[in-house]
Amino acid sequence: MDFFNNFAELKATKKLEQLARTPYNLTAPNALSPERLAAYQVSACGLDFFYGTQRVDGQVMEALQGLADEAQLVAQFKAMKSGAIMNRIIGQDSEERQVLHTACRDLFTPPPFAPEATAEARTQLARLQRFLAELENGTICNTKGEPFTTMVQIGIGGSDLGPRALFQALQPYCQQGRRACFIANVDPDDAAAVLSELDLSHTLINVVSKSGTTLETLTNEELVRSALVTAGLDPARHMIAVTGAGSPMDDPTRYLAAFHMYEYIGGRYSATSMVGGVTLAFALGYANFIELLRGANDIDQSTEQLDINENIPLLMALLGIWNRNFLGYNSVAILPYSQALLRFPAHLQQCDMESNGKQSTRLGSSVQWPTGPIVWGEPGTNGQHAFYQLLHQGSEIVPAEFIGFRQSQYQQDITINGTTSQQKLLANMLAQSLALALGRAHENPNRSFAGNRPSSLLITDRLTPYSMGALLALYENKIVLQGFCWNINSFDQEGVQLGKVLANRILSELAGEESGELLSPDSPEISLLRAAGL
Amino acid sequence: MDFFNNFAELKATKKLEQLARTPYNLTAPNALSPERLAAYQVSACGLDFFYGTQRVDGQVMEALQGLADEAQLVAQFKAMKSGAIMNRIIGQDSEERQVLHTACRDLFTPPPFAPEATAEARTQLARLQRFLAELENGTICNTKGEPFTTMVQIGIGGSDLGPRALFQALQPYCQQGRRACFIANVDPDDAAAVLSELDLSHTLINVVSKSGTTLETLTNEELVRSALVTAGLDPARHMIAVTGAGSPMDDPTRYLAAFHMYEYIGGRYSATSMVGGVTLAFALGYANFIELLRGANDIDQSTEQLDINENIPLLMALLGIWNRNFLGYNSVAILPYSQALLRFPAHLQQCDMESNGKQSTRLGSSVQWPTGPIVWGEPGTNGQHAFYQLLHQGSEIVPAEFIGFRQSQYQQDITINGTTSQQKLLANMLAQSLALALGRAHENPNRSFAGNRPSSLLITDRLTPYSMGALLALYENKIVLQGFCWNINSFDQEGVQLGKVLANRILSELAGEESGELLSPDSPEISLLRAAGL
Repeated sequence: MDFFNNFAELKATKKLEQLARTPYNLTAPNALSPERLAAYQVSACGLDFFYGTQRVDGQVMEALQGLADEAQLVAQFKAMKSGAIMNRIIGQDSEERQVLHTACRDLFTPPPFAPEATAEARTQLARLQRFLAELENGTICNTKGEPFTTMVQIGIGGSDLGPRALFQALQPYCQQGRRACFIANVDPDDAAAVLSELDLSHTLINVVSKSGTTLETLTNEELVRSALVTAGLDPARHMIAVTGAGSPMDDPTRYLAAFHMYEYIGGRYSATSMVGGVTLAFALGYANFIELLRGANDIDQSTEQLDINENIPLLMALLGIWNRNFLGYNSVAILPYSQALLRFPAHLQQCDMESNGKQSTRLGSSVQWPTGPIVWGEPGTNGQHAFYQLLHQGSEIVPAEFIGFRQSQYQQDITINGTTSQQKLLANMLAQSLALALGRAHENPNRSFAGNRPSSLLITDRLTPYSMGALLALYENKIVLQGFCWNINSFDQEGVQLGKVLANRILSELAGEESGELLSPDSPEISLLRAAGL
Repeated sequence: MDFFNNFAELKATKKLEQLARTPYNLTAPNALSPERLAAYQVSACGLDFFYGTQRVDGQVMEALQGLADEAQLVAQFKAMKSGAIMNRIIGQDSEERQVLHTACRDLFTPPPFAPEATAEARTQLARLQRFLAELENGTICNTKGEPFTTMVQIGIGGSDLGPRALFQALQPYCQQGRRACFIANVDPDDAAAVLSELDLSHTLINVVSKSGTTLETLTNEELVRSALVTAGLDPARHMIAVTGAGSPMDDPTRYLAAFHMYEYIGGRYSATSMVGGVTLAFALGYANFIELLRGANDIDQSTEQLDINENIPLLMALLGIWNRNFLGYNSVAILPYSQALLRFPAHLQQCDMESNGKQSTRLGSSVQWPTGPIVWGEPGTNGQHAFYQLLHQGSEIVPAEFIGFRQSQYQQDITINGTTSQQKLLANMLAQSLALALGRAHENPNRSFAGNRPSSLLITDRLTPYSMGALLALYENKIVLQGFCWNINSFDQEGVQLGKVLANRILSELAGEESGELLSPDSPEISLLRAAGL
C-alpha cells in the first residue's frame, strides 16, 4: 500500500517536533479568549467538539492538517470502508483481512462503500427483525407459551464490553418488560451471580463468539446450559448464537437461532454488528438499534472530510497524537459527565489499547515511536471526588476528554440554589476543563496549580440511541485514524497469544493430560503453581 | 517531625538509583527458578504475596529494606495509628489533623493504639448494632409496620466508592431479603435510574457526607426526599445519616438515626468507619461487617513489622517505589481475577491517586521526584480480551498487581476438559504474570514479546468478609507508606479546590445570582458557557 508510511519519516512530524518546543501557553493572560474558545470548535452530527483548552495554536493546527494530508489518513479510512486489506503487515505472516465494521451501518445513503458486506449486514438485520417479530407475536416463546423477558449475553472482550456499555447507556429506552444481562468472565462467580437473579424460564441465552472457540464463552455456555437442564428447561428452546458463518457454534441443532458476523469485523469494532445488535434490539427495540446505526453511519460519513475543521474523529486523532508523540503524555482519561456512560470508558479502553498498543509497523519492522496510550476513566462528577487530585497536581500530565449532554435522559431533575442537577453537572465539567488549563499561582505549593494540562470537550444535546451510535463511531474512527498515522495494524492482537499458550500449558498440567506438552518440574509454570499452592 | 525527610536526600535512594541501571533480567535463562519463585514470597493474614516476577534481586531487596529503615516507614505508620498529626505540611497552612481510620478496627487486641478514637468507634458500632436489632425486631419499620429491605447509600467519592466496591465484592453474603443500592453522581439520571427500580416504601435512605455540605450528596438527598414525598411517604421515617459530629447534617429532627464519623477519618480511608459500616452491616449482617474489620485489623498489625519479608503492605509499597521512581513507570494496573472485585480498582484508584497525586512535600516545598502513579484496572480474564495487548506489546511498561482466590464464592463450578472454571481463571492469572516477565523471541516483530514487564501476585483462599477487609487495609497501608516515603501529605486534597471554585462561579452565573462574584463577559467561564450553548 502506498500509504503505509512510517510516522517518523513524515515531513510533518519534523515540523511538529519543532513546534512542540514551545506549545501554546494556556496560562498566559487572555490565553482562553472568547475568540479562541469560539473558534476552536467543530460540530458534526449534533456533536460539538471544543478544543480551545488543548495546547495548540494556528501553526500547530496547520501542521496537524499537514500530517493528516501527508499520511493520507482520510484516504486510508475510505480505503478501509471500501474493503481494502487493511488488517495486514507487509512482509510478515499476518491476518490479511478486510476491515468492514463500517459496512454494518452503511445502510442509509446508497450506494454503500462495500456492497457485499452491507448486503450481508442487511441479511442479518432482516433475520433479526423477523426473530424479534416472532418473539413479539408469540411464535417463539417458552414451553408454557409465555414470552421471553430477559436476554443474557455470554461473550467476552469485543463480544461483551461494547454491547454492555451501550445497553447501560440506553437503559431508559428499554422496551417495557424487557431487560438484558451479561456474563463474561471465566470466573464461575460471574455466571453464578447473574443466574442467582434470573427466572430462567423467561430467559434467552445469547452466546456470542466470532470464532466459536473462545474458552470463557464456551465454558460459561456449558455452565448456563447445565443450569437450564437443572431447571427442567430445554436449552435448544432458550439459546441463540452470534458467531462467524461456519464456526463450530454455527449449528442450528443446538440453537433456536444463529446470527452471523464475518471475518472482516474485528471483535472490538463489532458492537454495531449482530454482536451488539441482537441483545440491544431485543432490549431497546429494533427501531432504536437502527437509530444507533444511523448515528454511527453519520459519523462515518463525516469522517470522510479532509479538513480537520469538519471532521471530529480526525481532529481528535491528531490532537491525541500531538499530546502523545510531541508533548510526551502517555495516557488519556475519558471522563463522561453522565452516569449512564459508566462503562463506556472500559469499552474504549479495550478498543483503543487492543488496537494501538502495538510494536510492529505495517512494514514489518519494530516501531520507533510511541504508539497507543493507556486509556482509562470514570464518570464525573464522581471522579472529581476520587482521582482528579492527581490530574490537577500529580507528577503526571494526563490529557482529558470530557463528554457531556445538555439534557438528562430521564428528565427528572430538581432545582436547588437556582440551578438544576444537570446544570451543576455541566458547570462542573466546564470548570474542570478550565481549571486544568488555567491553573492558579499560590505561594503555598500545596495550593498552586501549574495549569497547562490539556483537555477537550465533546457536548451534545442528549444521550439517545442516535447520539450513542455517533459517539461510538467517533471513537472507533479516531482510533483507526491514529493507527493509520502510526503505521501500525490496529486490527490484529498478536500480543494476547503468549499468555494463551502459557495458560494452556498450565491447564494441561492441572488436567493431568499426558498428551499435552509436558512441563519440566523446574519450569516457571510448575514452580509458580506449587508456590501458590494450586 | 523528625521523620519528614525528603526522598531524594535519603542515602538509600542513591544506592537504588545505581542498582536501577542493571535491573534483574527476568528473561535470562532460568531467571524464574523454582528457588527464586519460592523465596520471593511473603504470607500474612491468609494472604500470600509473590514477587519473583518483579525486576528485583537480593541487592535491590536489601536496598529497599534500607530505604524503609532510613525513611522510618513503620515508625511513621505506628505514629499515625497512635494519633500523631500526620495530616500536615510544616511551615504552610494545612489541615493539621490526626489520621485514625485504623482506630475503627483496632477492636480486637487491647489496648488500642488510639484509645479515644477506638472508644468513639465502639460507641458508633454499638449504636449501629442497636439500630439493626430494632430493624430486626420491628421497632423500626415503615408506616404499614413492614420491614425495610433495601438501603440506598447517597454519597460520593470516599462516601461511595469503598462501600460500593465492598458491597459488590461480598454480595453472596447478603442477608436474606436485604440489598443495597448507591447514588453518587450529581447527574440526575443516576438517582432516576436507581429510583426507577425501587419500592420506596421498603427503602431506607442513608445519606453520607462527613462535612454535611457535599454538593452532590445534598442535591441527591433533596431529589430522593421529594420522591419520598411524592410517594406519600414521610422522609423522617426513611432517612438516616452518617456525618461528622456537629455537621449541618447532624440533625435528629430530619433523620431516623445519625451515625458519626470524625475529623481524623479521611473520606477515602473511611470504608471501615460508619461510612461503610451502616450499609454493609444492614445488607451483610453486623457479624460480617465485624469480620471485615478483623481482617483489616490483622493487616494493620502485620504492618508494624520492620522486616519487609514479614510485612506485605510495606513490601508492596517499596516495590511500587522501585517501579515508579527507579525504573520510571508511571502507572500501575490492578487486575483482580475475580468478577466480584469489579469496582475494587476504582476504589483503589481513588484511594491512591487522591492520596499520592501530590506536588508539595510535607516540608512545604515543591516535590522534586515523581509521586503517585496513575492507578487503573479491570478484572481478569475480561481484561485479557481487552487491554492486555498493550500490556504485552505496547510502548508503555505497566507494572501489574494480580489478585486471585483459590476458591470461588458461590462454589457453583463446572469441569470442562479436566479443569474447573476456577482453575482456568487462576491458570490464566499465573500465565499472564509469566508471559509479561518471560517474553518470547520471534523473528516477526509482531509476534515477539520483550518480556521484563514486572508484576506481582496476591493470592488467598477465598473472597470473604475477612479477606476483603485484609485486602482493603493492605492497599490503604501500602498507599500511606508510599506517601510517607515520598514525604508528601497523603491525607489532604487541595488539588480539588480550584475546580470547585470555578464551578461555583459558573453556577452563580447560571443561577443569575447578583451576590456572587460577577464574571466578566470575556472570562473563559462565560466564553465557554456561551460557546457550548449552555
